[in-house]
Amino acid sequence: MTLRFAVLTVSDRSSRGERPDESGPALVKVIQGQGWEVTRRAILPDDLSVLRETLAAWADRGDADVILTTGGTGFAPRDVTPEATREVIEREAQGLAEAMRAASLSKSPHAMLSRAIAGIRGKVLIVNLPGNPKAAVENLQVVLPALEHAVQLLSEDPNAEAGH
Amino acid sequence: MTLRFAVLTVSDRSSRGERPDESGPALVKVIQGQGWEVTRRAILPDDLSVLRETLAAWADRGDADVILTTGGTGFAPRDVTPEATREVIEREAQGLAEAMRAASLSKSPHAMLSRAIAGIRGKVLIVNLPGNPKAAVENLQVVLPALEHAVQLLSEDPNAEAGH
Amino acid sequence: MTLRFAVLTVSDRSSRGERPDESGPALVKVIQGQGWEVTRRAILPDDLSVLRETLAAWADRGDADVILTTGGTGFAPRDVTPEATREVIEREAQGLAEAMRAASLSKSPHAMLSRAIAGIRGKVLIVNLPGNPKAAVENLQVVLPALEHAVQLLSEDPNAEAGH
Repeated sequence: MTLRFAVLTVSDRSSRGERPDESGPALVKVIQGQGWEVTRRAILPDDLSVLRETLAAWADRGDADVILTTGGTGFAPRDVTPEATREVIEREAQGLAEAMRAASLSKSPHAMLSRAIAGIRGKVLIVNLPGNPKAAVENLQVVLPALEHAVQLLSEDPNAEAGH
Repeated sequence: MTLRFAVLTVSDRSSRGERPDESGPALVKVIQGQGWEVTRRAILPDDLSVLRETLAAWADRGDADVILTTGGTGFAPRDVTPEATREVIEREAQGLAEAMRAASLSKSPHAMLSRAIAGIRGKVLIVNLPGNPKAAVENLQVVLPALEHAVQLLSEDPNAEAGH
Repeated sequence: MTLRFAVLTVSDRSSRGERPDESGPALVKVIQGQGWEVTRRAILPDDLSVLRETLAAWADRGDADVILTTGGTGFAPRDVTPEATREVIEREAQGLAEAMRAASLSKSPHAMLSRAIAGIRGKVLIVNLPGNPKAAVENLQVVLPALEHAVQLLSEDPNAEAGH
């Protein structure tokens, strides 16, 4: 099964071209290494309404199964990626965020400052990853083994069975 | 102390009689094995408003201390048990859901796809369990050691002490 | 970096002088042992609106970087500290609460009954701790290594960089 990913880098400085986007390309490399596709990419500033509208539009467009964000999940005043994500998801998937933080916490106590969330909009899974490239890749590796099953379930015919 | 349980199986197919309910009876067996009572049972479809109204009515009726749901906590389009639960609880109890997922995660990465929540309505604790019978029982075993203390606290006289 | 703490003990009985406040002084001792300051303290009853207004006022006053609450996080009918906290925070920090519960859970299954949350209002971090003095101190110890970095990030100039 070929999963289709959208990768959204969230960073004021990278969006202004003042800092190279390292986490976006690092995530793309992992995704392609799995034999999966990246169908959409962008670099956006830490702006709640811009992020909210982009996430909603991308999820509704139907060309990605999973949207990964990187950046904006921390404690800095402009870090609002989880807030933007919460406004567009219809069903939260706490288990993904908990699993990522639990894994990171075994490496650094600063992992507990991640405010990342995950959730579902329509048939699309949205997952927040940290902005640090190494941490973003490590967090993606944590949820990777569950993504194919997640997308399979999301694409089930709602008129068929349920009750998982 | 004899705890009183209500067990709600959430499954479109089981509610139509197309699939036997295996998780409900499995949970009843564990509860009775503890010397506790099952005072109420039902099998309902994955329908948000039906679930919401049933959970609220059961919690308000006063014949159960704990309501266990099984099913509808995953990623399939019709899985909305956590959403129905969230609408009726007054105080969330994240620790129960976190503990169940952490325990399941050590067995399978798919455990991170559980969107189960837990919370309190009045004096009643509501806990979402997965639909798979084996996973439902394993998750119940995780929270079992805390249930008696939980119910004792919930039944305290609100005019007495607090500050736990 | 000297962090400034406000410590709020939440307990009906202690607020009426019927029970000595043990968890507040225990937390103060840990904070001062780190070379940090306690700039504000109070003992309040388990009253949602009183707690909400106090937490908001303390956060907005600017004389504390971190507000610690102790008590009111459990299952007793009047335990509403997390609900008061949720109403005043602007950005939730789930990782702190998850880390505290995961650490406590390795000691006692009752830890899963903690409903504590953490979050940010303006430049101030609010963290719920349990009411039991020993558990409150143990939970504070869990988040301690991340607090200085948290406060540094919160105090960044929002017109400067972001994207952590």
